[in-house]
Amino acid sequence: MPGTDKTLAQKATEGPAIILVNPQMGENIGAAARAMLNCGLDRLRIVNPRDGWPSERAEAMSSGALGMMPPVQVYTSTADAVADCHFVLATTARPRDMVKQVFTARAGAIEARQRSLQGRKIGFLFGAERAGLVNEDIALSHGVITIPLNPGFSSLNLAQAVLLVAYEWMVTDDETPGRQFDTVPVTHDKLHELFARLETELEAHGFFRNPDQKPSMVRNLRSLLVRADMTEQEARTFHGMITALTGRKSPLPDGQD
Amino acid sequence: MPGTDKTLAQKATEGPAIILVNPQMGENIGAAARAMLNCGLDRLRIVNPRDGWPSERAEAMSSGALGMMPPVQVYTSTADAVADCHFVLATTARPRDMVKQVFTARAGAIEARQRSLQGRKIGFLFGAERAGLVNEDIALSHGVITIPLNPGFSSLNLAQAVLLVAYEWMVTDDETPGRQFDTVPVTHDKLHELFARLETELEAHGFFRNPDQKPSMVRNLRSLLVRADMTEQEARTFHGMITALTGRKSPLPDGQD
Repeated sequence: MPGTDKTLAQKATEGPAIILVNPQMGENIGAAARAMLNCGLDRLRIVNPRDGWPSERAEAMSSGALGMMPPVQVYTSTADAVADCHFVLATTARPRDMVKQVFTARAGAIEARQRSLQGRKIGFLFGAERAGLVNEDIALSHGVITIPLNPGFSSLNLAQAVLLVAYEWMVTDDETPGRQFDTVPVTHDKLHELFARLETELEAHGFFRNPDQKPSMVRNLRSLLVRADMTEQEARTFHGMITALTGRKSPLPDGQD
Repeated sequence: MPGTDKTLAQKATEGPAIILVNPQMGENIGAAARAMLNCGLDRLRIVNPRDGWPSERAEAMSSGALGMMPPVQVYTSTADAVADCHFVLATTARPRDMVKQVFTARAGAIEARQRSLQGRKIGFLFGAERAGLVNEDIALSHGVITIPLNPGFSSLNLAQAVLLVAYEWMVTDDETPGRQFDTVPVTHDKLHELFARLETELEAHGFFRNPDQKPSMVRNLRSLLVRADMTEQEARTFHGMITALTGRKSPLPDGQD
């Protein structure tokens, strides 16, 4: 039925972005693309693919999926890749030393679908084949999806992790409870402006005494601010607090201070 | 936690058999084994693997899974591979010209789990990479699992089909409603004795007038009898009907007629 296909194509257009961070083998990117499209998702983003892009091996392994999708978007940082997203979930098998809401794939898909139905842009982050996501990437996420697997044998192929998340997303389609989100959350690019400004000011004010500890301090700060799920108004308020505390409007290069 | 692992290993021991019919590439068998074990299943059966067994490529692609599982069982017919099963579901993307209950992966997993909790042995059938299952195999199944995928791009890699079914099986673990099955269903080997006897008698009695149509007639008959979900007593009754109608106890080679 053409009607069915059109509806699904349209849903795919509005669907979440699958974001592969530092993927190594082109084959895995292609297999991930195939798995996504199997489940009606067609927005693939990749951050610093080790072997470059485009990739003939990815094309071959995608079984035609890459040719049917909009062009893959390539980024040089995870922050750029999630800049337009309102809600980001990171998939990781390992619990991290960070306070994040943890979802099963199913619960994460339901949570994301509810926000998507309110017009929010969703991103699902996947790490490299062996290394997974680094803490800096996880800090940019609103929550973590931990797929509940056999604890004795839990290492999942990248494309299979993408498949399970995309599948759960697709299956939520019919069964989403009508939970409402009344506020407009901030997009990640606005949040990054806030991070940059805050961290610059903290640096200027001697907050990071031990340079060795600065990366983890920054990470925990970002994680905290992401988790707060701020609205745009709240982000502006936060900027206002910084302005008030420091006495200057913005220390960013493009600022008007 | 060793306790957690032990519980899961025990569940795996009692878990469904994943049955790959005529798989072609060893790589796909290995990837399927990995996906199964990710989800706590470790009973792999293969019917007529094209490239033989054991397979070095399968070992390599399984990422160690094959070494952690009981030895793979190899069969020369699908009927043999399901002989000890009480409940068999066939995965196929295509609706067939046969009356079968059709399940989503989730509904099929719930259905199978309910029977497993009553001590029934479960089998999930998967066809070859491109060809899928033939109608003769589907006829041996109590129902069909059709994974709901993007209708514009639904061809799923073998290992990914195994992953989705095994995953849904694993996830049903916690949320199975307490439906009861009071009767003991017949195992497939008993059913096959019945098929063989019935078909031999029908042949002897000129039932299959057109030899060209015999295969599809047999298939539909088997499909019907499987779908009936007979108890052992009912199978005996059916044998009794044949005995009564034909006037002889059993025309099988090892029979006592």
